[in-house]
Amino acid sequence: MAEPVDPGSASARPTVGMVGGGQLARMTHQAAIGLGVEVAVLAVSPDEPAVLAGARFVEGRPDDPAALRRLAAGSDVVTFDHEGVPPEVLDELAAEGIALAPPPEAKIFAQDKSVARKRLGQMGFPVPANLLADSVAEVESFGAEHGWPVVAKAPRGGYDGRGVWELDSADQAEPILEGLEGGLLLEPKLELVRELAVITARRAAGESVTWPVVETVQRDAMCRELIVPARSDEPVLERATELGRSIAEAVGAVGIVAVELFETPDGLFVNELALRPHNSGHFSIEGSVSSQFEQHLRAVLDWPLGSTAPNAPAVVTINVVGPADGSDPRQRLPEALGVKRAHIHLYDKDSRPGRKLGHVTALADTVEEAHRIASEAVGILEGGS
Amino acid sequence: MAEPVDPGSASARPTVGMVGGGQLARMTHQAAIGLGVEVAVLAVSPDEPAVLAGARFVEGRPDDPAALRRLAAGSDVVTFDHEGVPPEVLDELAAEGIALAPPPEAKIFAQDKSVARKRLGQMGFPVPANLLADSVAEVESFGAEHGWPVVAKAPRGGYDGRGVWELDSADQAEPILEGLEGGLLLEPKLELVRELAVITARRAAGESVTWPVVETVQRDAMCRELIVPARSDEPVLERATELGRSIAEAVGAVGIVAVELFETPDGLFVNELALRPHNSGHFSIEGSVSSQFEQHLRAVLDWPLGSTAPNAPAVVTINVVGPADGSDPRQRLPEALGVKRAHIHLYDKDSRPGRKLGHVTALADTVEEAHRIASEAVGILEGGS
Repeated sequence: MAEPVDPGSASARPTVGMVGGGQLARMTHQAAIGLGVEVAVLAVSPDEPAVLAGARFVEGRPDDPAALRRLAAGSDVVTFDHEGVPPEVLDELAAEGIALAPPPEAKIFAQDKSVARKRLGQMGFPVPANLLADSVAEVESFGAEHGWPVVAKAPRGGYDGRGVWELDSADQAEPILEGLEGGLLLEPKLELVRELAVITARRAAGESVTWPVVETVQRDAMCRELIVPARSDEPVLERATELGRSIAEAVGAVGIVAVELFETPDGLFVNELALRPHNSGHFSIEGSVSSQFEQHLRAVLDWPLGSTAPNAPAVVTINVVGPADGSDPRQRLPEALGVKRAHIHLYDKDSRPGRKLGHVTALADTVEEAHRIASEAVGILEGGS
Repeated sequence: MAEPVDPGSASARPTVGMVGGGQLARMTHQAAIGLGVEVAVLAVSPDEPAVLAGARFVEGRPDDPAALRRLAAGSDVVTFDHEGVPPEVLDELAAEGIALAPPPEAKIFAQDKSVARKRLGQMGFPVPANLLADSVAEVESFGAEHGWPVVAKAPRGGYDGRGVWELDSADQAEPILEGLEGGLLLEPKLELVRELAVITARRAAGESVTWPVVETVQRDAMCRELIVPARSDEPVLERATELGRSIAEAVGAVGIVAVELFETPDGLFVNELALRPHNSGHFSIEGSVSSQFEQHLRAVLDWPLGSTAPNAPAVVTINVVGPADGSDPRQRLPEALGVKRAHIHLYDKDSRPGRKLGHVTALADTVEEAHRIASEAVGILEGGS
């Protein structure tokens, strides 16, 4: 993949180009230092978290083909810290011979919820009933068949609760449909036992490794806590693991792929896919032998993958979110470091209410103990709010 | 210590200035990313390992007071990745009110072996018999009293076997004395059971934490392997831990202090001190809850220290050294990553025979198993040489 290099020169360092300069790129850069790999990020500002951490800065927007070509020109492979490059731009770059990991035909499963639902269903994976609705009449009909409320999603661009609506009646869809191109993806509101995520790293060569199933706890439509291993029954965990692994293969993922699952009384259903390092894999930095960030680098460079074995019987990760009063968790870091065994990660982002600013991981013999440690540190960082 | 900061701005990030841009600064920067701390390094070239990893680059030599003042101007505190700032320059900077961690009166214990031997002996710590000799006659007299060979060391500037000689007779000292200012530190060649290192992190406020005792295995006068915990008897380990902790306090260390010890049939003797992150602490990145690099940052910023508890029953770290044939371990990284559970760290340094280029750590239930994993990966990286 890399050009032949002059032995003994600094250019022996492979370079991974990453589109996006957020916390995922920041932690990928941090992992890259250990391997002697350079990370170059395409970001709009030098104040983005990955650039502040020292990743090489390539200025530009993720929807600008010229900027993406500049990133690619200095990189052995181009990968992503978000889903925001337009699919048609990815197709154009791939046609030019630029190495993209994952390739556009895999990435689309994370970029377009409607495409993902449809194709995963066709492949035989369990997806919720769904309809891409263009009109209020279709919403009315879907609700009549599956019951209210109906969950409606923008097929593209949403995250952390943005682009998701709960409709109690069809007329609520009218203003949303007016503001959207490409329709509204409808699904029933499922009865959830819990939400799960299965993280897999996969090389182009086909080798893949899957982490223990993660239980994800949502608050305010945002993933707030990870519990590893998930507290589901063993057959559910086995089925979830198999779904994660086989979906990674079926979509042709390269790098990290996170498969979000709904555990319901009627079994498991596939929610969304992310084809990049994912919030639900943050536990792996301390919680497993090789982290999702190191594995993402290995996978996109087509290098052998590491072990996903857990480092402790229980791992809990809790996100640090900007408090409602606008205060800054960074200023409370020294106090939070007083919590022994809490692994604190701050992303160096300005504080805004509800914004993900960091996370805290704790390893222990029990979930309860790990949760106690992580939540104590997060409580201090968030100002006890 | 830090100036009041504008809440919510990027300047909420504390900055640690580090003199030196080698692998210790590189791994300190890597740890700093997690805490949202900025590391600025004083280095002579942007090709040094810490700058390649994205630490902020301040150009200059470590013996140039103007360069050190530039580093200090942008930093909350100044610390070190080596011992090479002349003590008189440190005194000058401290007199100007620049915050140095450790302070010059502590740092001298790592900079001048003769001063360290003398003062530690006066404090009651066990040091080998020693003499700072200025003449062949003094060498002759020391050898007559303590037996040959005599170990002779340059009091300042030596490391990894440089600046150390084994003398079989006094006349061998003559050319060495001619090339040295300040005499030659003599000591008997001790009968070694093994060599140990005790790593302590200490805050100015006085809080300190000490890691499990490290067994260091030397080859070609360079530390090549770390075994944790050391395989000494329990009373020896307790005595070593107490020596490490109490020496850190006695010298007034701030940050990491590594105390190298000789275990002999006649008990423990203090060899050398390092007042900075140290090769013998590399095991702590994966092998303990908080690494020496994170703890160094916490300590110099006067923040609470983390846990030094081990993450596995046995941890082995082996250095990756430039092979005799001049080949580059970076080119064999993909193959070495095939060794599961091996944590590979490369410093992005050009390969030269005998040069430290990286290290590999493995955790396991037994020393034998950890050693097998780490040595397999190192063997591949060094080309089986």
